[in-house]
Amino acid sequence: MEYDEDARWDKPATLSTYLTHKDISEASSGSLIGSPDSKRYDSPVLKLIGESKQKHYRKVCMPLTTEKWKERWSKMCLLPSESSEEDKELAAKTAEKWRLNPAFERGEVTITRLDEAEGIIVMISDWLELDAADDWVRHDAEIALKQELAYAAYLNVHTAILPAPRNRDHVASYARMVNSCLTKYPYICLSIRLPIYNPSAFHPTSPTPVSPFPDSSISSSAGTPSLIISESEGTAHSSRGSVNATWEMWDLIRSMCEYNIKLTLTLDLSPALPTTLGVLSKWAAESVRHIYLPASTFIANAKGYPVLPKPTQQFIRDSMIHRPTIILAGVSEGQHSKGGEVAYSQYVRHLEKTSPAVMTLRKEGTVENFAQGYQDYLQAPLQPLMDNLPSITYQTFEQDPVKYMQYEEAMYRAFLDHPKDQKIVVCVAGAGRGPLVARCFKALARSQRKATVIAVEKNPNALVTLQERHAKEWSSHDFHLVFGDMRLVDVPEKADILVSELLGSFGDNELSPECLDGAMRFLKPSGISIPSSYTAHLAPLSSSKLYNEARSTKQEKSMETPYVVMFQAVNILSGTKATADGRCGPQVQECWEFEHPRRDALVNDQGLPFTNSHNARSAKLRFYIPHAGILHGLAGYFEAVLYGNIGLSIHPHRKDQVSKDMLSWFPLFFPFKEPLYLPSNSELQVSIWRLTSDRQVWYEWHAESFITIPSRASVSEELTGQSLSPSFSGNSSFSSMASPLIDPKELAYLDVNRLSIPDNDGGEYDTVKIGHTSLHNPGGRSSWIGL
Amino acid sequence: MEYDEDARWDKPATLSTYLTHKDISEASSGSLIGSPDSKRYDSPVLKLIGESKQKHYRKVCMPLTTEKWKERWSKMCLLPSESSEEDKELAAKTAEKWRLNPAFERGEVTITRLDEAEGIIVMISDWLELDAADDWVRHDAEIALKQELAYAAYLNVHTAILPAPRNRDHVASYARMVNSCLTKYPYICLSIRLPIYNPSAFHPTSPTPVSPFPDSSISSSAGTPSLIISESEGTAHSSRGSVNATWEMWDLIRSMCEYNIKLTLTLDLSPALPTTLGVLSKWAAESVRHIYLPASTFIANAKGYPVLPKPTQQFIRDSMIHRPTIILAGVSEGQHSKGGEVAYSQYVRHLEKTSPAVMTLRKEGTVENFAQGYQDYLQAPLQPLMDNLPSITYQTFEQDPVKYMQYEEAMYRAFLDHPKDQKIVVCVAGAGRGPLVARCFKALARSQRKATVIAVEKNPNALVTLQERHAKEWSSHDFHLVFGDMRLVDVPEKADILVSELLGSFGDNELSPECLDGAMRFLKPSGISIPSSYTAHLAPLSSSKLYNEARSTKQEKSMETPYVVMFQAVNILSGTKATADGRCGPQVQECWEFEHPRRDALVNDQGLPFTNSHNARSAKLRFYIPHAGILHGLAGYFEAVLYGNIGLSIHPHRKDQVSKDMLSWFPLFFPFKEPLYLPSNSELQVSIWRLTSDRQVWYEWHAESFITIPSRASVSEELTGQSLSPSFSGNSSFSSMASPLIDPKELAYLDVNRLSIPDNDGGEYDTVKIGHTSLHNPGGRSSWIGL
Repeated sequence: MEYDEDARWDKPATLSTYLTHKDISEASSGSLIGSPDSKRYDSPVLKLIGESKQKHYRKVCMPLTTEKWKERWSKMCLLPSESSEEDKELAAKTAEKWRLNPAFERGEVTITRLDEAEGIIVMISDWLELDAADDWVRHDAEIALKQELAYAAYLNVHTAILPAPRNRDHVASYARMVNSCLTKYPYICLSIRLPIYNPSAFHPTSPTPVSPFPDSSISSSAGTPSLIISESEGTAHSSRGSVNATWEMWDLIRSMCEYNIKLTLTLDLSPALPTTLGVLSKWAAESVRHIYLPASTFIANAKGYPVLPKPTQQFIRDSMIHRPTIILAGVSEGQHSKGGEVAYSQYVRHLEKTSPAVMTLRKEGTVENFAQGYQDYLQAPLQPLMDNLPSITYQTFEQDPVKYMQYEEAMYRAFLDHPKDQKIVVCVAGAGRGPLVARCFKALARSQRKATVIAVEKNPNALVTLQERHAKEWSSHDFHLVFGDMRLVDVPEKADILVSELLGSFGDNELSPECLDGAMRFLKPSGISIPSSYTAHLAPLSSSKLYNEARSTKQEKSMETPYVVMFQAVNILSGTKATADGRCGPQVQECWEFEHPRRDALVNDQGLPFTNSHNARSAKLRFYIPHAGILHGLAGYFEAVLYGNIGLSIHPHRKDQVSKDMLSWFPLFFPFKEPLYLPSNSELQVSIWRLTSDRQVWYEWHAESFITIPSRASVSEELTGQSLSPSFSGNSSFSSMASPLIDPKELAYLDVNRLSIPDNDGGEYDTVKIGHTSLHNPGGRSSWIGL
Repeated sequence: MEYDEDARWDKPATLSTYLTHKDISEASSGSLIGSPDSKRYDSPVLKLIGESKQKHYRKVCMPLTTEKWKERWSKMCLLPSESSEEDKELAAKTAEKWRLNPAFERGEVTITRLDEAEGIIVMISDWLELDAADDWVRHDAEIALKQELAYAAYLNVHTAILPAPRNRDHVASYARMVNSCLTKYPYICLSIRLPIYNPSAFHPTSPTPVSPFPDSSISSSAGTPSLIISESEGTAHSSRGSVNATWEMWDLIRSMCEYNIKLTLTLDLSPALPTTLGVLSKWAAESVRHIYLPASTFIANAKGYPVLPKPTQQFIRDSMIHRPTIILAGVSEGQHSKGGEVAYSQYVRHLEKTSPAVMTLRKEGTVENFAQGYQDYLQAPLQPLMDNLPSITYQTFEQDPVKYMQYEEAMYRAFLDHPKDQKIVVCVAGAGRGPLVARCFKALARSQRKATVIAVEKNPNALVTLQERHAKEWSSHDFHLVFGDMRLVDVPEKADILVSELLGSFGDNELSPECLDGAMRFLKPSGISIPSSYTAHLAPLSSSKLYNEARSTKQEKSMETPYVVMFQAVNILSGTKATADGRCGPQVQECWEFEHPRRDALVNDQGLPFTNSHNARSAKLRFYIPHAGILHGLAGYFEAVLYGNIGLSIHPHRKDQVSKDMLSWFPLFFPFKEPLYLPSNSELQVSIWRLTSDRQVWYEWHAESFITIPSRASVSEELTGQSLSPSFSGNSSFSSMASPLIDPKELAYLDVNRLSIPDNDGGEYDTVKIGHTSLHNPGGRSSWIGL
């Protein structure tokens, strides 16, 4: 991916209007004739589009087909069982001829001209049951879908919204068809319409009887399938089941379509959202292109103007950062007494302006503002030890107002802790173009201390800048410049304080531990290091965008390398808090720590370590996953203690307290090659290793997924005729309740793959393994760090 | 893979002896001096090897290192906490020097010479805790492991057995090390020793206290780790947990090692097996290279001779088909009163000879005997419609005694159902070299009927054979030969009976439906087809071997194509019976059926179908998975009704009743690109589609995995303040028992990804999605069938 100039936040959200069949037929039926518009527009549709543009809608969305097409298709493909044999045979023959050469008649489509279709988002016939329970309905719905897409492609339509999946039991068939269409019509983006939340199960006035999902079939048996007519104004809702079932369907569809980037989502907000907003954050990690927002979702405020219920408001606000197209439907129908049609658009614009994420993005000085255009853009981490950085890179990082303020403050406090009359020796290890040296002199002045300052730098090019600054800025100071690698050179005098800025996004990933091992020779026995310690932190992440970005780099090892990324379209999958029993830690967990100087240092005669073994690390973390999601990678963060309580942090929960608005580090992203499905209420175990050989340092990472379920271990007493262990006894509440899946004969084997873990509360739970990723970057396959 | 001549069953199982430290030290301590052997052998180890050969062991297995090495390593790397600071620093320094240059001293290894190591299987130090809970013990164990493997590689050792994984919590680290070694030592095969069953949890005299797994750590905290000393005679057992926990560890290791073919299993039968043999069939699908069988596992029979307990007997018998090396340990120690050392080998040989699988393989006329050398060998299915078969292929299939007998019997019975005085017209569609024509004449003679026989054949080469047989064998009969594709040519007379043999391993996969559609024009309105119908069947399959074979073909689409395979190293994952509630079907399930002639045929003026839509099929199957396993693919079978109750079947449960010893068809294997982990007591939903365009027919397939757990849906009442639906009420037994994983604050969201399915028994269960495969062969990407 290239840096995207257009991604800068200078455009407002795109608003689209939705034209209904009624709009189109009204425009067609005479209103054009004789009106002043009759000369301006060549067709009713062009007139409607023209009017929409005048109302400042940037896009127009409309159905592609008319009721006539629905009638013909239904007559051919959905014969009522009471039809006569002759009627059936006639219909069968008509259908066979249609299947051989699927084609529309003129009145069956809403648009017929290239200019009518320009920039239009079309809705594919929403009555097509691509996931009908009946095989033949599905079969003919697929032919119809392809006929519609072929026609749309003929008219150069770029975006088509598909009918919502309705039947969990046949979503795999729906997905297979979509995948086939993505290949067959390579120039159309397909967007899956999906009611984000389906309240039909809670709705007493639901028009169709609620049947248990997924055993229910929406279509009836062969020959007489019924249809769910999903009207665009959202009076009928097609999918069933609980809030997240719709996400699960989406996940299956995009997975089976191999995360095709031409496949997006149209979230349907027809029903107002429930108050459980927690589960909605997952949509941030998905490819949401459109939000379908009908007038019926709006409520009237005290004055009668249309507004949205609070949860829907908040969802729209949060979504604005991802810049979806908002499709406003039915807004011309006067459902609210005040404000007219324009009130809806104005309200959406208001939500955009008051979106906290958008406001942060627009505010000067925030990292979000600074990072515009870099959101979700994968960068290879810097390797300053291996590569000599160019001046422009130094300049970018020197612009960070917070980081150097923190360094100055840390040095200032360290100096204050030195007796006023003693001269201090400060060594800046890795001085670059000199920002820390400059801050050091400031801190000395503030603390009224005197010091010898030694700067060590291995980049010969930066050395010229340092010499220039020495001559021009620092000539009055006791300043010494040493050229060379801090692991090899010697300094004229041992230091009290060693200051360095070698940290990467994950703390140690730019080899700070190894470099500082080499520089510890410069310190007096009582000397200290700024930073004095740093820690690496991880959280499990979902992001279709990052997954696709990492895959699309096309380098063989693109999934074996961590990237530096400013996260935007992501969702952290772990629950915010540690579990009550302490088994799983918090949302973001610490992997390991490095301290300088090392307390257990064992060095050779040159003051260098014998091996790098002491810098190897490993961590095994347990995350609680409250809501189902797809694991695409790990987010990596760091925290550092500079001196005392002065620190640096990009930890999402603590960065604002520690070093607010610090710009220098975006998080790290460790990708996983194969997305891993994590169910609700599951446990994710992450292993990560920092490994080292004589020549390099690298990370390997891996994850395993578990689900914790009530124990059935007591049945295994049949296995041996004795109790497994004391903790297994007294577990009567579950053992008597066999699953409907369990054949009684199988019961004896049931426990065999379960590890029963008596928990602190005395309950009995089994932790059942359900999946894992592969081992990433084994043997430093992609060795992005060289010593 | 090439056809493997060596794979024919002419060699008995390989027996190996295990040399202990005691054996080696006794051989070293003087017994060599002055003995008659002293000149024959250059070293004590060579003497022991020589003696083993004399005792007819084909292989020798022995430890690579001695007690001295264990002492030195422990002293360096495992400091007791009560050590003095000086001792600690000294040890730390010694360890650092060792880490820098890991090397043995002479007395620390059992073998030192190339000739000693020749053909030896070495045991890596079994006290190395590669999965210790303590980071630094693991770190140093890895260095020791690599030191041992480097030494083994120096001595040209080809096989090394690694210590058993012990600690589920750190198996990922163990696996990472193994993977690293596989890369680093490319010429050594690594075999993971694994106790197939660990009874320590059941064992009252277990030497170490049983602590709950996996929270327990085998090593103690840093600095003072304890060691599990796993003695080779199997008196101590290292892994914990239930029967299948060991398989789960193996699965993680080989998955993290990417199914490396140099990684195998050494199953340790030190404890006798339990009676639950059902769970052991999974080892058939794994790469078991060695079976470690100590004398202590044997019991004495009434006469005092060593025999194995029944379950262990049966397991060894079943394993023999996979030809592992049996490592007999401690057999020279006289643990049993009768028979001496040779009794153990003789007993194992006896088990081999009485193994039902081996006996079937050795018996002439069985498909297993016929298929020798083809076990687990992937073949592309025949495409007789696209390719004209060579004579040798016809000949192979004509050798099947059962298939043609069934055809003759079917024709015979069909003829008998015709009035004796009426002439019958028989058309053989796709006559090949004429086997069905010949059987037709036999059946006519047996039934004393007269017939006109018309043979249609499109292969111009086979036509020559048919002409020759016509002239030589069938000249006295009323026989007509028609050259051409049965979908295009005409026959001189309409037939009463159409006979064809167009079936593939999956029934319709060689395009029998499409070909017979074309040939139905040859039939009189009352005419019949032999076969009259056929069905396709699937079962979920686990097989590391087939997975690796499919991957190794290196063709880009090798995982998108079904293969014909004679299964051997496989395990069907589905439970043998349908579940009590009818939700999941039986072990092998029917996908779809084709009937001839079609009842709903709709044809054009030429008697041909308008489209091929009617031959599209799809199936959604639900399998119950009783024991955890890895899904690598689907096994495909067919059954056909020829006439009346005469049929053909390769369905594993029915083939022996329908058409025993029929040789013509091996099953089909539909591979999955990504192995899918299926937990115990889970549900697998398989979707498969038979798709068709104008030009081709292909299959697409996909699977989703679910786990069924007691419902917690009632907590969601908090979500809306009202009951979800009537069926959710009264569910008090689980709602009060929160998982230790659940933070009370999260409870309100808990249900969101669960679909609650009230089952027939009134219990409440949620079916939770836990994983899926990708969609295979989308759009006929790999179009192995052309119309």
